[in-house]
Amino acid sequence: MKIESVDFYYLSMPEVLDIGDGSQDALLVRIAAGDHVGWGECEAAPLVSIASLVCPMSHSACKPVIASVLGQEINDVRDIRRIGDLVRANSLDLLQADHTLSGIDIALWDLVGRAFGEPTWKLLGYKSRFPKTPYASVLFGDNAEETLKKARNIAAQGFRAAKFGWGPFGLSTVADDCDQLAAAREGLGEEGILLVDAGTVWNTNLDAARARLKMLREVRATWLEEPFVSGALSEYHALSLGSGLVGMAGGEGCHNFHMAKHMIDYAGLKYVQIDAGRIGGITISKDVADYAARRGVTYVNHTFTSNLALSASLQPFAGLESHTICEFPTELKPLAKAMTKNHILPDQNGLLHVPDAPGLGIEPDLEGIAPYLVPTEITVHGKQIYTTPRLR
Amino acid sequence: MKIESVDFYYLSMPEVLDIGDGSQDALLVRIAAGDHVGWGECEAAPLVSIASLVCPMSHSACKPVIASVLGQEINDVRDIRRIGDLVRANSLDLLQADHTLSGIDIALWDLVGRAFGEPTWKLLGYKSRFPKTPYASVLFGDNAEETLKKARNIAAQGFRAAKFGWGPFGLSTVADDCDQLAAAREGLGEEGILLVDAGTVWNTNLDAARARLKMLREVRATWLEEPFVSGALSEYHALSLGSGLVGMAGGEGCHNFHMAKHMIDYAGLKYVQIDAGRIGGITISKDVADYAARRGVTYVNHTFTSNLALSASLQPFAGLESHTICEFPTELKPLAKAMTKNHILPDQNGLLHVPDAPGLGIEPDLEGIAPYLVPTEITVHGKQIYTTPRLR
Repeated sequence: MKIESVDFYYLSMPEVLDIGDGSQDALLVRIAAGDHVGWGECEAAPLVSIASLVCPMSHSACKPVIASVLGQEINDVRDIRRIGDLVRANSLDLLQADHTLSGIDIALWDLVGRAFGEPTWKLLGYKSRFPKTPYASVLFGDNAEETLKKARNIAAQGFRAAKFGWGPFGLSTVADDCDQLAAAREGLGEEGILLVDAGTVWNTNLDAARARLKMLREVRATWLEEPFVSGALSEYHALSLGSGLVGMAGGEGCHNFHMAKHMIDYAGLKYVQIDAGRIGGITISKDVADYAARRGVTYVNHTFTSNLALSASLQPFAGLESHTICEFPTELKPLAKAMTKNHILPDQNGLLHVPDAPGLGIEPDLEGIAPYLVPTEITVHGKQIYTTPRLR
Repeated sequence: MKIESVDFYYLSMPEVLDIGDGSQDALLVRIAAGDHVGWGECEAAPLVSIASLVCPMSHSACKPVIASVLGQEINDVRDIRRIGDLVRANSLDLLQADHTLSGIDIALWDLVGRAFGEPTWKLLGYKSRFPKTPYASVLFGDNAEETLKKARNIAAQGFRAAKFGWGPFGLSTVADDCDQLAAAREGLGEEGILLVDAGTVWNTNLDAARARLKMLREVRATWLEEPFVSGALSEYHALSLGSGLVGMAGGEGCHNFHMAKHMIDYAGLKYVQIDAGRIGGITISKDVADYAARRGVTYVNHTFTSNLALSASLQPFAGLESHTICEFPTELKPLAKAMTKNHILPDQNGLLHVPDAPGLGIEPDLEGIAPYLVPTEITVHGKQIYTTPRLR
């Protein structure tokens, strides 16, 4: 089969708020080859990924992403890696390319899965899929009281695990942060798995992070996520030496295999969190899952948009039985819910199952999506090089 | 002073060829504050950096770059770092942002330098500037014969050093590559400093790189540049162990301080090559220069476009006396030459001097640029969010 079309659809809520909620817009990817179609999603900044898909060439190692995809043969999963390698070589100097490739790689796994009638996790080489323990992923409340309410609400919904992140955490005093952490633990109950996401708030400030460690240990946080920016390997490592049972978690910012490998090799991580919509898709995510498993680091998906992205993020570690925690965003904006006809929901035991249907097992809802479509046009030298394609 | 405007100008040769020549297009940056103007340049993929400047916000950590720049106070060099930190935080999930920020940071150093009447290298804290030994940076010929001619031509121009890169090197047989290397050495003469750039051609393939080491030692290459992609730290390190006097060089792909630090810490580099137009500008380049000097690694500029970019790339290590080699592209396309009124040229001893004029010491040539301007428009939801600004 030959790749005949690569369509990017920019979707957005009517109003995007200045909060740490990644479900406010989306970039949906549709790829067609032969009689088959596959769907994928790129994380964040839709317009920039669209530009990198179609931009004029700068030189031989800075080509638009589409140049390495359109017209390529796609007959089995090996072609997906070949196409990814082509993009990485031909768009070496195009920084955004890894994010753009991510949605394309995801759509290709979906397409090949649908063509072969096999779920993606089987095509990845896994014989079985194992249930995951979803954590409800929410923002910290504006104050401890609000966080307490959020935590109680999550516990009442039957979640065994919850992650609190962003909001005011880390930006205020240590005392305020301690109150927030205590509220989260209280609301969740003694048995709940409590995860904390600092959202890179301390950048590379080791002391600021260390000042919160005592309380994190006291509330028995399972992990502290992103105390620092992704590249701060030595700061991560230094913090991990004094963190006791609170594991270091990070990796969502990685946009290639090497960056994730460095975090595993040098940062003292206990949990590596990979966003398939950023790191280069399912192919590279699975490479990281394999490497993490070999190195005794637990793989966790990172995802904060639609259930299409959620399914893509779960496939790479579906068959890793002991890697049980998974991210499951529960405060999605209406756009992210409307994007798909079916949804991934916890079973009566509160466990999440990776879809057992061909490809990603998620059906885009073209009627549901339509109201959120953002008409976009790019014109260079009088020639329109991008206009929003028709939803079909 | 308040930053009143941030203008991006997409420039391009009428025809962009599929060769490894980064001077075929450019993204020129103009920033105005108070009565002053500064000029900068972003490396590669102009349209994508334009999109990342003006794109709609995705969420609180994925804002357009301009949101952290326009309206900011710029009164001294500390404001430049503050603005860079703002961009990195507010555009954390916008991958292209580091490249976009680079041109802005460069323009801000130029602006502050012009406002204070001081050259950038002085504002960076250097008391003196030291002459550099420029290497002529050229592509390998299509065959050894062509490379021999190129090398003889460079020697005849009085260059003491030359770098050969890209073209067929590494893609053909080991024997062909040996012929190319021998031709380069022969043409350059026994005394010339010979540098070799593999342009990441072996990706992470250690054996392919090792197969060329013997010949690289025989022709006394001073360095082997980018045998692998930037992230392949362990492969770089493994190759360095058997490379003898041939130093490992790399780093141009780094788009933040951390990536360069990792290459210095873990990759066995002898030369770290930083492109101020990619890594986040002059501010971050100087951070890397300081760190490299502390760690005994030699800093080298990477640049392949106009003399504006060349000056920006030289400032961060202008005062490091023992870091003498510098890149000096000699096959620039007419666009890159036409962009500036004045040019940086070797003196009668073949040495290069960082400009001693306010800011970057380079005057853009607005009339020279005009024919290369690429009219560009981006429209989102019926609203034009970018159109090429008037050259002024």
